[in-house]
Amino acid sequence: MALIVQKYGGSSLTDVEKIKKIAARVIAAKDSGDEIVVVVSARGDTTDKLIKLAHQINEQPAEREMDMLLSTGEQVSAALLTMAIHAQGKDATSFTGTQVGIATDSSHTRAKILKIDAKRVKNKLEKGHIVIVAGFQGIDYEGNITTLGRGGSDLTAVSLAAVLNAQRCEICTDVEGVYTADPRIVPEARKLNVVSYDEMLEMASLGAYVLYDRSVEMAKRFSVPLHIRHSFSRNPGTLIIKEDKSMEDILVRGITLSKEEAKVSFHGVSDKPGVAAKLFQAIASANISVNMIIQNVSKEGLSDISFTVAKGDLKKAIAMARKVSRQIGGCKVSADDGIANVSIVGIGMGRHSGVAAEMFTALAEEGVNIQMISTSEIKISCIVSEKDGKKAARAIHTKFKLGKRN
Amino acid sequence: MALIVQKYGGSSLTDVEKIKKIAARVIAAKDSGDEIVVVVSARGDTTDKLIKLAHQINEQPAEREMDMLLSTGEQVSAALLTMAIHAQGKDATSFTGTQVGIATDSSHTRAKILKIDAKRVKNKLEKGHIVIVAGFQGIDYEGNITTLGRGGSDLTAVSLAAVLNAQRCEICTDVEGVYTADPRIVPEARKLNVVSYDEMLEMASLGAYVLYDRSVEMAKRFSVPLHIRHSFSRNPGTLIIKEDKSMEDILVRGITLSKEEAKVSFHGVSDKPGVAAKLFQAIASANISVNMIIQNVSKEGLSDISFTVAKGDLKKAIAMARKVSRQIGGCKVSADDGIANVSIVGIGMGRHSGVAAEMFTALAEEGVNIQMISTSEIKISCIVSEKDGKKAARAIHTKFKLGKRN
Repeated sequence: MALIVQKYGGSSLTDVEKIKKIAARVIAAKDSGDEIVVVVSARGDTTDKLIKLAHQINEQPAEREMDMLLSTGEQVSAALLTMAIHAQGKDATSFTGTQVGIATDSSHTRAKILKIDAKRVKNKLEKGHIVIVAGFQGIDYEGNITTLGRGGSDLTAVSLAAVLNAQRCEICTDVEGVYTADPRIVPEARKLNVVSYDEMLEMASLGAYVLYDRSVEMAKRFSVPLHIRHSFSRNPGTLIIKEDKSMEDILVRGITLSKEEAKVSFHGVSDKPGVAAKLFQAIASANISVNMIIQNVSKEGLSDISFTVAKGDLKKAIAMARKVSRQIGGCKVSADDGIANVSIVGIGMGRHSGVAAEMFTALAEEGVNIQMISTSEIKISCIVSEKDGKKAARAIHTKFKLGKRN
Repeated sequence: MALIVQKYGGSSLTDVEKIKKIAARVIAAKDSGDEIVVVVSARGDTTDKLIKLAHQINEQPAEREMDMLLSTGEQVSAALLTMAIHAQGKDATSFTGTQVGIATDSSHTRAKILKIDAKRVKNKLEKGHIVIVAGFQGIDYEGNITTLGRGGSDLTAVSLAAVLNAQRCEICTDVEGVYTADPRIVPEARKLNVVSYDEMLEMASLGAYVLYDRSVEMAKRFSVPLHIRHSFSRNPGTLIIKEDKSMEDILVRGITLSKEEAKVSFHGVSDKPGVAAKLFQAIASANISVNMIIQNVSKEGLSDISFTVAKGDLKKAIAMARKVSRQIGGCKVSADDGIANVSIVGIGMGRHSGVAAEMFTALAEEGVNIQMISTSEIKISCIVSEKDGKKAARAIHTKFKLGKRN
């Protein structure tokens, strides 16, 4: 008998019929002989509605009170799913984050899990119950309700799976799994049977929003196998596991395309120590996250530095860059929000230098100009013009024959 | 500096504008120099919507899960009101029943409060905060969320007022106070400035649903002065306090009219010990609450026993009565759901035998036939035909000149 943790997102619980279907699915898993812990998100647009209401009342609601408010959504889901399981004749018990003993720090709206007690969960599992846990929430050392931020329910599920030594953690959602590329952009994209934690981390940070990177990091740290699958389908989804030998011959696992970044460049920076430090200290002090940073070798004592930020942070980033430019004695600042980041991810590529050449060839054949390049052990990212993004993704997908095999 | 507990009902918190108004009212109370604890109910029809949803999922939802579900409504109200107070520049903190330490037994959906810790409430009050508490809920010794049943938020408020030694507990609602009669039935009904706990208890149990009797009993036991008033008006409402000398000359405080009862009669019961016991054991075993019980002196060894029950329980009551009738050898059972209970309540009437006569005269003058009479130290109730109910209430109100003075 194994222990399985299943997590269901809000879109799987929007109405009575869906809740009943999920209950049947949970019961089927239980009937197959496993112990089942289910983590649920808030239903449908509940959270958005509550956030809107809060902002109508207070433009900047206190984060502690936001947590108090929003945590109710998951509690409602947990109670309703438990009732639906009872209606189908099985024992089940719901718990809030507080009741499960999910201890977090006090960073309201983005708390970190410190420890999970889970005594009550184990107790009920021993009595043969299916246990339903309200995701996304915890309790700080003073007894305040906290929430875990974006992707918080996934994090609850993965953490519980780690603490309970679960055989795997199923993330049940509205997609069939992880694909070689976004099927809306690359029609021949293929569902992957298996992806490594590191590949998934790169893909998540590059805009493949199946899972947030915090959850993947947690799963990797505690070696919790993840299974991404559709809430209303019996098809196998995508397994996310540790890299193993069977994966070695794969060069490129998948392609991501993100249009959510903008580019800022410093031109003609004098080639002296400390300039880059000054620039990024200023950017960091304005609470702006930087994704890609590139500095090329200098020519005649002058070099260019470019970086990308989320589009929403561009105005602030330009202002900070201009300020630093004045301090260091005037270099030109330019910016562009019409860019796309097209990346390939795969654990094998670090050992095969030909991969980068093949990617650049694919782009050249389509006439796509590369503005910036950045690489890591398992990833190559190119910044291209936004209008070329989709074309670039399709060309690379074809070049690496990702639609054909696994 | 005094401590005041204020309770706001769900109809006072339905929309953003109302929540802002209540916040301003709470702040005004704080600015007048008092410490303020606010207890809130779920907003508008939130609870009804959640109950409906639960019943669509499970015809008989588990009571533990209902508590898990419904307690979220008050938690949402508490967070939103706290945000509204923040927006108006004051410190405030919200708490759930669990966080306040409202320890109850495990009778889900109708739990009894055993103990209140309130350490966190005192702590925040000392720091100058307004404290907002989610009403209606507590926590049992195992850590499960419980709810207190009908009028539960009032009970939370009164209990907190008792534990915190509050100067008074204000029940802020959608009526101006307690009236000599229901103004929709008796237009000249007058708001009472003061009512004793015992009078309010009789009035509550007779259908004047300003307050449920559990809250009044709790207030009486711990001598918590209650102040019933309108949430959006500055008018003084009705004080509910211990009987004192200033009240002594009042004979009749008010009139109640209830059409929610039905009558069952046993005719020709043989006048032997144990018959009434048998009958009411059977009624109790079917979980039926009996309001009024009347047995008159017997004639020729036979007597009649009548009692009233809530209309919804009538079918069950008739079935039980017939069963007992067969057991004791056949007496006739009759029933009538077309009745009204018109009562007068007042602490002075026990010392003035003329009050009953005056009430009966008022009814006779209007041609209203009295079917049953029952009295207590501070109450006289008459069962009349349902169609005569309003006429009876008006006639008695006029007879005792209740519209004229206090």
